[in-house]
Amino acid sequence: MAKVKALSAREIDQQLATVSGWTVVNGKLQREFKFADFVRAFGFMSQVALLAQVANHHPAWRNVYNQVVIDLVTHEAGDALSQRDFDLAQQINALLG
Amino acid sequence: MAKVKALSAREIDQQLATVSGWTVVNGKLQREFKFADFVRAFGFMSQVALLAQVANHHPAWRNVYNQVVIDLVTHEAGDALSQRDFDLAQQINALLG
Repeated sequence: MAKVKALSAREIDQQLATVSGWTVVNGKLQREFKFADFVRAFGFMSQVALLAQVANHHPAWRNVYNQVVIDLVTHEAGDALSQRDFDLAQQINALLG
Repeated sequence: MAKVKALSAREIDQQLATVSGWTVVNGKLQREFKFADFVRAFGFMSQVALLAQVANHHPAWRNVYNQVVIDLVTHEAGDALSQRDFDLAQQINALLG
């Protein structure tokens, strides 16, 4: 698998400014989403699944009823954050816009 | 919300024999599923989502790429296991049959 460049701490800080609601938690780019109910939460997950598949960049995520928590990290960058994580986070945020 | 009867330890043991692959982990009925890839894993999740919505009984679950872990517990039984959990586990197993 092709190596992907890990971002520096400075680059991560710069990128974080571009993805509202996301923070770095345990080295992963994380955001929690709340919806009115399960139908809306899973509808959102279905949208994210399509984006992830197109990007070939898949989240670690969990759901309980109306809550979805997404963690992004780049395996091909040594489980560090890369531009791929921020690109997908931006695409996910755009779903809510 | 209507109260749901929590199963006794004996009832849980009896029910576990009916749901292949599921075990009780931290008080929840849990099974891990592995698929060939994300498309298949998320396809399975979509099927489970429909079953859960019909049953009005929603899992706590997580996914990374081809792996799905489902935890079932009944909030309306005081976060204990009820027949609802085993009924949904049986329906989920039937998806794989």
